[in-house]
Amino acid sequence: MEKIPLVTLTTDFGANDGYVGSMKGVILNIAPDARLVDITHHIAPQNVHQAAYVLYTAYAFFPPHSVHLVVVDPGVGSARRPIAVRTPAGTFVGPDNGVFSYVMANENEPVEAVVELADPRYRLPQISHTFHGRDVFAPAAAHLATGVSITALGPPARDPVTFPPPRLEIAPDAISGEVLHADHFGNVVTSIGRLVWGGGELLLEPAFQEAGGGERTRFQAGDATIIVGGREIVGVRRTYVEVEPGETLALVGSEGHLEIAVREGSAARRLGLRPGDTVTLRIQ
Amino acid sequence: MEKIPLVTLTTDFGANDGYVGSMKGVILNIAPDARLVDITHHIAPQNVHQAAYVLYTAYAFFPPHSVHLVVVDPGVGSARRPIAVRTPAGTFVGPDNGVFSYVMANENEPVEAVVELADPRYRLPQISHTFHGRDVFAPAAAHLATGVSITALGPPARDPVTFPPPRLEIAPDAISGEVLHADHFGNVVTSIGRLVWGGGELLLEPAFQEAGGGERTRFQAGDATIIVGGREIVGVRRTYVEVEPGETLALVGSEGHLEIAVREGSAARRLGLRPGDTVTLRIQ
Amino acid sequence: MEKIPLVTLTTDFGANDGYVGSMKGVILNIAPDARLVDITHHIAPQNVHQAAYVLYTAYAFFPPHSVHLVVVDPGVGSARRPIAVRTPAGTFVGPDNGVFSYVMANENEPVEAVVELADPRYRLPQISHTFHGRDVFAPAAAHLATGVSITALGPPARDPVTFPPPRLEIAPDAISGEVLHADHFGNVVTSIGRLVWGGGELLLEPAFQEAGGGERTRFQAGDATIIVGGREIVGVRRTYVEVEPGETLALVGSEGHLEIAVREGSAARRLGLRPGDTVTLRIQ
Repeated sequence: MEKIPLVTLTTDFGANDGYVGSMKGVILNIAPDARLVDITHHIAPQNVHQAAYVLYTAYAFFPPHSVHLVVVDPGVGSARRPIAVRTPAGTFVGPDNGVFSYVMANENEPVEAVVELADPRYRLPQISHTFHGRDVFAPAAAHLATGVSITALGPPARDPVTFPPPRLEIAPDAISGEVLHADHFGNVVTSIGRLVWGGGELLLEPAFQEAGGGERTRFQAGDATIIVGGREIVGVRRTYVEVEPGETLALVGSEGHLEIAVREGSAARRLGLRPGDTVTLRIQ
Repeated sequence: MEKIPLVTLTTDFGANDGYVGSMKGVILNIAPDARLVDITHHIAPQNVHQAAYVLYTAYAFFPPHSVHLVVVDPGVGSARRPIAVRTPAGTFVGPDNGVFSYVMANENEPVEAVVELADPRYRLPQISHTFHGRDVFAPAAAHLATGVSITALGPPARDPVTFPPPRLEIAPDAISGEVLHADHFGNVVTSIGRLVWGGGELLLEPAFQEAGGGERTRFQAGDATIIVGGREIVGVRRTYVEVEPGETLALVGSEGHLEIAVREGSAARRLGLRPGDTVTLRIQ
Repeated sequence: MEKIPLVTLTTDFGANDGYVGSMKGVILNIAPDARLVDITHHIAPQNVHQAAYVLYTAYAFFPPHSVHLVVVDPGVGSARRPIAVRTPAGTFVGPDNGVFSYVMANENEPVEAVVELADPRYRLPQISHTFHGRDVFAPAAAHLATGVSITALGPPARDPVTFPPPRLEIAPDAISGEVLHADHFGNVVTSIGRLVWGGGELLLEPAFQEAGGGERTRFQAGDATIIVGGREIVGVRRTYVEVEPGETLALVGSEGHLEIAVREGSAARRLGLRPGDTVTLRIQ
């Protein structure tokens, strides 16, 4: 059966202007039956790291024939390359600025191709200097979604930009990481993951570390102490309702990362946490 | 003709994270041709009453084969049941926490089935402890949208949680109710409804009251006095433009409820009204 | 091949209520296979000028069979007419309050028909006094999207409301215009456009001026001085990265208009600019 073309969109364009609409119009002109799904348009302006993280939390749940269009592009108009990346989990289109770092760090779904979007047949006839989302990336995504081969879009792009993986240091008695993201609820996601439950134990299977890909650490969830934002939180919980409303807790979040939360409240606000802040999990 | 699967989404997830995208990916993996419609993702965190109200204002306008997925779920991870509800107007999927109270209070479209989402075939293979929207509710909604029978998803769920209907007291010379919702414009919707125009008269047909389902009250719109937020407003209008810009008025809103508004302004702000505040309509 | 019905939506309804969802339900009841694309629901309440501008930036990128539904309707319930407008670029549905001014000012795609939405067959059976978006405009848009002829919806509507085109005065040594819009990034779009690059020169081809439709002005981009918000900015750039982060610049934006920006910052905030403010481009 023919797959229905599916394009997701992740941008920092906000929801007030016509920019996202223009991109969707461009896509539907090329792929009239494409299914369009917004991941978010509320990435903080120019925050490539945040876009990389939010994409990471969502793309794996889409069918592998999906095309994920990401336009967070502070370097628009500079020499930064427009690229497409293919992995077994999906195809990704956007600027070569690190926004696909997490996608490319996934060793279970190794990168199959990275190309530069160079062929003018897969761009709009007129290219503005300031809106490649509409003029370059949206047409490329639409053509890929309709089945155009990634290699038709341009030559291989060597050495795409990637960020260093988020901090994760594993010692016999402690695991150290950093805050990755504070979500809408104020839940704070950290780089300490993936954590997998096995009875009352947690097993750490590093998510992004190429170097430490083989390392594993096992510890009793109830015995761990989390030090973050000047506080100590004892124990890693399974779910919010194990504590009273208003209480601070640590738990394993929906992506398998250690998360700091306040039940029915905001841990980001209470603990004043920001991306990059240190979090340490001390094992007894 | 085969119906196109249609799933609506109502959550408190906001628009900044990958959560809504993940749920849509899950749905499109199961129901690739499903039409997805966002009702809102801006329910105040954990505000089950608000979600119930917003769903009530929208669901009746969708085709009856639609599946309405609601994820406002402060009890995720607790013993609260995941349920599906079927009425002649649609099928509803979400936590058993009262979010379907208005749906189930509609005597014209009585509940046909309520089941607990228990069958693992209609869940993701891995269930997180914190994100049942993605792992339990989205797959159930997708399967229902593709035509799986509600009874296949699990056993009947007895005594689903419902809120008491909003306050509505009818006396010969006055009707008393409460504020239900302040909308984006600052228009304040009350529980005094449904009001139906008949010439210059208004007829009250209680919307949610099982007890008072047969009661009706008839009064002259121009003669009514509305007492709310320490003010008196004389007369119920048909539309905003009957008063000057900036003026406060009472009118019958788009769902047939008594509404307090300021033309081209915010009644919620001017009168400081909040859900639960008392509103009285005095009849001459 | 049959075209897939496509309806875009532009409103001031915000994202918190059930209003947009209701309209989509109404559309999908009439046109079950319609593709729905949100342009924005964050037009400032009752700001018809802003809606007209945002629609202008997006509609031309959609296929010509698209129906563009715009509901920014401060006069709902008054005598203002509900209309549909057809041009070679698309069909437009909304209140007759000027919201289609830019669409109708486009001399390259002259208006083919304007009708009043009068035929009750293309409305909901019950019309509220306050929500014509749901009861009048959404059904009309859905029927038009499925191929109903515009002339079936009602009689010709003479003299639709249009705004005067935005200010644009061309003198031998200066071009004067006004601020049209500040976008999500704080980039400030002006009425000085369209500007087309030819080498280092810019050619002005007035976008909306019926009177001045034939006028053209040519100048060296590097020699121009832009006076706006009490500042002078020298030169018109091609792109943000020609200046350092934090620096103010003038450039040609993605719709071909002169734009004032701060690289990785907000020009709207720094210069305190608002729609209607004067901007002058002095030519050497």
